[in-house]
Amino acid sequence: MVLINENYTKLPGSYLFSEIARKVNEFKIAHPTADVIRLGIGDVTKPLPQASIEAMHKAVDEMASAETFRGYGPEQGYDFLVNTIVENDYKAHGLNIQTDEVFVSDGSKSDTGNIGDILGTDNIVAITDPVYPVYIDTNVMAGRAGDLGTDGKWTKIIYLPCTAENNFVPELPKTKVDIIYLCYPNNPSGTTLTKSELKVWVDYALENKALILFDSAYEAYITEDDVPHSIYEIEGAKKVAIEFRSFSKTAGFTGTRCAYTVVPKDLMAYTSKGEEVSLNKLWNRRHTTKFNGVPYVIQRAAEACYSPEGKKQVKDTIEYYLNNAKIIREGLTEQGLKVYGGVNSPYIWVKTPNGMSSWEFFDYLLNELNIVGTPGVGFGPSGEGYLRLTAFGTLENTKEAVLRLKKIKL
Amino acid sequence: MVLINENYTKLPGSYLFSEIARKVNEFKIAHPTADVIRLGIGDVTKPLPQASIEAMHKAVDEMASAETFRGYGPEQGYDFLVNTIVENDYKAHGLNIQTDEVFVSDGSKSDTGNIGDILGTDNIVAITDPVYPVYIDTNVMAGRAGDLGTDGKWTKIIYLPCTAENNFVPELPKTKVDIIYLCYPNNPSGTTLTKSELKVWVDYALENKALILFDSAYEAYITEDDVPHSIYEIEGAKKVAIEFRSFSKTAGFTGTRCAYTVVPKDLMAYTSKGEEVSLNKLWNRRHTTKFNGVPYVIQRAAEACYSPEGKKQVKDTIEYYLNNAKIIREGLTEQGLKVYGGVNSPYIWVKTPNGMSSWEFFDYLLNELNIVGTPGVGFGPSGEGYLRLTAFGTLENTKEAVLRLKKIKL
Repeated sequence: MVLINENYTKLPGSYLFSEIARKVNEFKIAHPTADVIRLGIGDVTKPLPQASIEAMHKAVDEMASAETFRGYGPEQGYDFLVNTIVENDYKAHGLNIQTDEVFVSDGSKSDTGNIGDILGTDNIVAITDPVYPVYIDTNVMAGRAGDLGTDGKWTKIIYLPCTAENNFVPELPKTKVDIIYLCYPNNPSGTTLTKSELKVWVDYALENKALILFDSAYEAYITEDDVPHSIYEIEGAKKVAIEFRSFSKTAGFTGTRCAYTVVPKDLMAYTSKGEEVSLNKLWNRRHTTKFNGVPYVIQRAAEACYSPEGKKQVKDTIEYYLNNAKIIREGLTEQGLKVYGGVNSPYIWVKTPNGMSSWEFFDYLLNELNIVGTPGVGFGPSGEGYLRLTAFGTLENTKEAVLRLKKIKL
Repeated sequence: MVLINENYTKLPGSYLFSEIARKVNEFKIAHPTADVIRLGIGDVTKPLPQASIEAMHKAVDEMASAETFRGYGPEQGYDFLVNTIVENDYKAHGLNIQTDEVFVSDGSKSDTGNIGDILGTDNIVAITDPVYPVYIDTNVMAGRAGDLGTDGKWTKIIYLPCTAENNFVPELPKTKVDIIYLCYPNNPSGTTLTKSELKVWVDYALENKALILFDSAYEAYITEDDVPHSIYEIEGAKKVAIEFRSFSKTAGFTGTRCAYTVVPKDLMAYTSKGEEVSLNKLWNRRHTTKFNGVPYVIQRAAEACYSPEGKKQVKDTIEYYLNNAKIIREGLTEQGLKVYGGVNSPYIWVKTPNGMSSWEFFDYLLNELNIVGTPGVGFGPSGEGYLRLTAFGTLENTKEAVLRLKKIKL
């Protein structure tokens, strides 16, 4: 009799964004002419950089001729892309990352989801709260989460609340943890850590032989000086941290799919007997056994983001979104709402007015103003009383949304 | 202290194809002018179908404009591709597969590797021997394999030998098994099962509530009538089988990355208490949580394989490879070698002459004839004494290889 992985039965039925989609669809059926503005799901709207478009056309033509055709490539990514990543994202910033520490993949969702494959099920996991749901769900699937309590918390997960009360800076856990998920600039709150705040975590991990899974998918949005772009800017981090980066929000690759993960060779984890094992080797084994590389044409598109034209085009797009973020932030602040994020991030984290719950505010915005946000509680218990708006809309829609938001009666 | 998944430490250090690559590189350094013909790794050499090239150019242009840009798509694949798959690969053959039973992915390596995620670790796994190494390795990682014995076998895996002695038709296991991997047309042996031979396995699975993981990556190469293209041609299979299909060998997508997996809604697995659970629901949860879909431009390339022009182009390429297979098969048979496969498959499975081991024959071919094959033993203990050649080379190289092979002194 074939048995299932019973951890899956613990997962709540519906995924946050599916639930939002269902509510929006119901609204649109009831109000077919309503002009709904979607500032909910974190998807981009601007086209790919022209440099990537040109690179893809060229690569497609290469696939049309036996002389230039590419079959299986290295699972870890082609040298042309890996070298470009190392040079531009690390060496240019004084960080010494080697090419065999970089693993190109189809997305940070896959990588942050799959990384647990190489880690033991007995590790204690700490997660900032609110958080990207994939971190939690994939630990439930792996059996590291325990059971879901009525308070919305999993019994074995250590939650690190990040709210206005602690200025969105997580405090060190009171009990020992083995794996810590950190995402900065943060999804969903759009807030950041300074270098000294991040150092606290690297030091904790060094002292406790813990592993930091550092998701920096939004680093391209950083505008302030003291905010680290890479965790490897912190001394000692190569011994304790894996870094996830993505082209999705940087260069509009949400439907084009390319990301990469850095697993330093200095990074060790342990057997139950305390023997050191290189996580780089384990991840390489997983990546080459369960993955066959990113499409050649997509890797060429990613490489093109680093050409002088590509960099300029990427920068322009990010400035466009950051300008949207500023419009939302300032508009809502003028309106008397408490607003966080949006300075080093495309996400704006709004405190719901008048003690409304996240879903009440979501329903209010959808039904009264025809704006779709994301209920903060969908990202975890400490997200209750907040709502996430994103800057990925068009300038026109963003301005229109702010005009509508000014109708909120506080 | 962060703990690793200790199952990874059981895996032998080197992957079959890496070891071959190492030997070939060493040979080329020692003999820089040698004209090495690679008939080893199963990678294609013909370019993509022109229909896919045109579809990709069009899709790339769509990504260049905000009006037609595509961000996140459905993780399970766009309707345009899923509908095309269902119509052409199933409904046209009288098989009733629904669109929500099809999951588009980046490759069958990923899917056959990741499918274990939704299955319990206590399942007993049966694997035909020789076999695609990913099936074994991913079960080692999941803790279902036990330990590696000196006979090259994992203690918990049930091996189903497929050799010339049983005409490459596996016998039912003597002890009960829960999960059965079947790949037909077979990699590596190139042999097939008839409908009645496959029915034996479906009946076994129905009777024992077992799950068949059916890899039909090579179905497009079937030329004979009584060989099933899909396991769903067998009555009852939708209750017991998941089918994996790929564009890699069909349409030259090894470097372009698209595949799909069918998980019927009738297919149930069980909790330890014996409660039925739909594997379609579990796989959908995994696929949407740990994967973000195949690139839009790649899905358009895959869709184009089903247009009238695309179908013609795909057929022409497969006929080209099958002609190569015929040349190898007939050339080696004339030479007095025992040869299997190559009729419904791009793979030719050669019995090594004079009692040579697989690696001895590999070394002989590399050093004496400058031909790269794949040692059969690399696919499992029952592959010892065989070597795999593939038909994916050019016609010219294939003919030249056969001329060289005629120099073998038996």
